[in-house]
Amino acid sequence: MKISARNSLKGKVKEVTPGAVNAEIVIEIVPGVEVTSIITKSSFEKLGVEVGKEVYAVVKATDVLIGIE
Amino acid sequence: MKISARNSLKGKVKEVTPGAVNAEIVIEIVPGVEVTSIITKSSFEKLGVEVGKEVYAVVKATDVLIGIE
Amino acid sequence: MKISARNSLKGKVKEVTPGAVNAEIVIEIVPGVEVTSIITKSSFEKLGVEVGKEVYAVVKATDVLIGIE
Amino acid sequence: MKISARNSLKGKVKEVTPGAVNAEIVIEIVPGVEVTSIITKSSFEKLGVEVGKEVYAVVKATDVLIGIE
Amino acid sequence: MKISARNSLKGKVKEVTPGAVNAEIVIEIVPGVEVTSIITKSSFEKLGVEVGKEVYAVVKATDVLIGIE
Amino acid sequence: MKISARNSLKGKVKEVTPGAVNAEIVIEIVPGVEVTSIITKSSFEKLGVEVGKEVYAVVKATDVLIGIE
Repeated sequence: MKISARNSLKGKVKEVTPGAVNAEIVIEIVPGVEVTSIITKSSFEKLGVEVGKEVYAVVKATDVLIGIE
Repeated sequence: MKISARNSLKGKVKEVTPGAVNAEIVIEIVPGVEVTSIITKSSFEKLGVEVGKEVYAVVKATDVLIGIE
Repeated sequence: MKISARNSLKGKVKEVTPGAVNAEIVIEIVPGVEVTSIITKSSFEKLGVEVGKEVYAVVKATDVLIGIE
Repeated sequence: MKISARNSLKGKVKEVTPGAVNAEIVIEIVPGVEVTSIITKSSFEKLGVEVGKEVYAVVKATDVLIGIE
Repeated sequence: MKISARNSLKGKVKEVTPGAVNAEIVIEIVPGVEVTSIITKSSFEKLGVEVGKEVYAVVKATDVLIGIE
Repeated sequence: MKISARNSLKGKVKEVTPGAVNAEIVIEIVPGVEVTSIITKSSFEKLGVEVGKEVYAVVKATDVLIGIE
């Protein structure tokens, strides 16, 4: 399924921290560039997310804030 | 200001498309890895975003969906 | 691509209102049940959304508020 | 209170899974069309959500992504 | 309608900037405390928002980030 | 770091409820005006949020809904 979210960053699951309610997933896009996602436990189980698996970090452009130092 | 959003990806502004209402900003994190942000025109002007400037793409972990092929 | 968002409602595009910045899309899930989406103009064009097309309204469970009268 | 979110789907609570932190609520809009919401435990208790109760699934149009196969 | 969002700040519309696509609304909660909302033009018209009107700024607790200097 | 979110309300942490997964933080903007935020436990610990500390409640304008009675 193609999705309307503008950002779809391909990477590999580096770390997974399943919790009682949510699961925290660290995705390595390229060495040194990581994105952390938090999804519900049931979505985590449904998708079968595990370390080493190829996934996409999908983010709407309007959910990306800009920070400037 | 440190912010509670989990993802804060440092990069350089590669492309800017200011519009009547919003501005679209493409940030190059590293060569080949880009993130697109859409912020309001007034935030865009207030922050002084321009091509070549160093910025952070700030995203809450709960706003990162996981996609699997 | 399977996606971690919990809600993926299948329906048909009933109405499309493309604008300068965004596009407004009304999806008929079943007769009498409609969902309105607003996506960026470029995502709209990239996906080739048009009236009559079968699409999914994809919504994270945490983006669904509950209202009670 | 009328609210600016564009989608306000009327339905009946079909299933409730209260957790330590959040509560998961499945709303049947019409037979065969369900929407899942996750709200905080305190909001869940404050609103008195229970199976069989009439509720609205309230979603901003900008939080509805479009998926196309 | 009672809504599950945790924050519902009562205030008065101080400023309105209707645009082609969205409308920008500044709400004065108390003197010196203002909240800016951006909603779609059609929601703006449907609700009949105008300067001086009493409104609520409704925000989910998970949409409130914390910043620390 | 300046951030593109439109709302940045300065206040003091009044109450903190750390949980297994998330932490709930009540911020007093001015006496009688409070904002509740929910952030992940790890962000909570990383920022060192505690009662009495000066913080900002940061909210995107597009995440502020309007309610009218």
